Amino acid sequence: MTDHTVKAFDDDINALRALIAEMGGLTEDAIDNAMKALTTRNLDLAKQVVAGDTRIDELDAHIERLVVQTIALRAPLADDLREIVAVLKISGIVERMADYAKNIAKRVETVTANSRMEPLSLLPSMAEIAREMVKSALDAFIARDAKLALQVIERDRAVDDFYNSIFRTMVTFMMENQKMISESAHVLFIAKNLERIGDHATNIAEMVHYVATGEKPPEREKSSMIDPMER
Amino acid sequence: MTDHTVKAFDDDINALRALIAEMGGLTEDAIDNAMKALTTRNLDLAKQVVAGDTRIDELDAHIERLVVQTIALRAPLADDLREIVAVLKISGIVERMADYAKNIAKRVETVTANSRMEPLSLLPSMAEIAREMVKSALDAFIARDAKLALQVIERDRAVDDFYNSIFRTMVTFMMENQKMISESAHVLFIAKNLERIGDHATNIAEMVHYVATGEKPPEREKSSMIDPMER
Repeated sequence: MTDHTVKAFDDDINALRALIAEMGGLTEDAIDNAMKALTTRNLDLAKQVVAGDTRIDELDAHIERLVVQTIALRAPLADDLREIVAVLKISGIVERMADYAKNIAKRVETVTANSRMEPLSLLPSMAEIAREMVKSALDAFIARDAKLALQVIERDRAVDDFYNSIFRTMVTFMMENQKMISESAHVLFIAKNLERIGDHATNIAEMVHYVATGEKPPEREKSSMIDPMER
Repeated sequence: MTDHTVKAFDDDINALRALIAEMGGLTEDAIDNAMKALTTRNLDLAKQVVAGDTRIDELDAHIERLVVQTIALRAPLADDLREIVAVLKISGIVERMADYAKNIAKRVETVTANSRMEPLSLLPSMAEIAREMVKSALDAFIARDAKLALQVIERDRAVDDFYNSIFRTMVTFMMENQKMISESAHVLFIAKNLERIGDHATNIAEMVHYVATGEKPPEREKSSMIDPMER
């Protein structure tokens, strides 16, 4: 690449990183607002989260177009190319995390029809950890910070522990409240959505760690969607 | 590109398509075997599905490396570049579908500990439709067949209907069988996994339809993870 193209490529990649950061911020808000809607029974807020997902989908599509355009115009070499492919993958992961937040928002109507569900009180703390993981994973990506990435990976254990605890609590709750089994199943799915958000943040952190250090982070059960503790 | 590079690019893209087809075949087998393990209580087969997922992850990583290499060596122009980016995205989607099959396999041990669960009989038909959707979506991708892609998109409704029916059946079952609530929750998650496989197959079909026709397929609620009927 000529100096001019190098500069142009740097501008492009910085623009892409800024778009990822924007998507990340919107996704954090979506998680926050979905949980706020759930705990305060705010159906309007839940609808806003669902509607707002369109903007995140558009950003993902925009990033994909920019990636294709950047590759076509700048013809980046190996390392730069790998970085730009990483941007594309991370954009896709953020889009899916936002989908999980939207999914939580969609369940608000069903779950909050009934207020007598104590296990609901466990969810906000779990959601807060998941949201922080999203923020830290993307901060680590922007700053190429392997240490922060490692912290995110370690944090995933806390989300898994929360999930397993909620699973057991909900099973007991359902046994004792048969009329609320349907709502309880939705709460289980909400907990599972939060657990998946944590898992996706971990996937991003693993990519960041690998790109920054060339080493895979310490062994973790990849994409674990069921933990032995859940049984 | 020179004639020579065009030929080389065609070879590369054909190699990538063959790898996607291989991944797709393994993913279909994983869905089939996970369901077989579930319905025949075959723990060894379930473990094979879990272990076999590593191969699918490796194929996904291999495809990513080949994509980067192809772009770097062939410097494809706009249309070819978009196609190769589509390969990368589809590979990622297939990898996730295989993760859902693995997740089903991981639940076999918990669910089949108890045989008296009639709603289990609903799952194989749902799984069969989901598996066929995976096959057709990837066939449509390989053959650039917009008509077949459209059939996949239409089929997703059947998977959603199955899911909603299973959700209601399971809620009733849990009310009547409180001691089986934990196992029943796992069955709900299995049904949700199958529904997500159908959703991902639909996403691939939508991409194929768009690339082949330049038109978005008729409106569908994107990435719907909860249907009003589920309530």
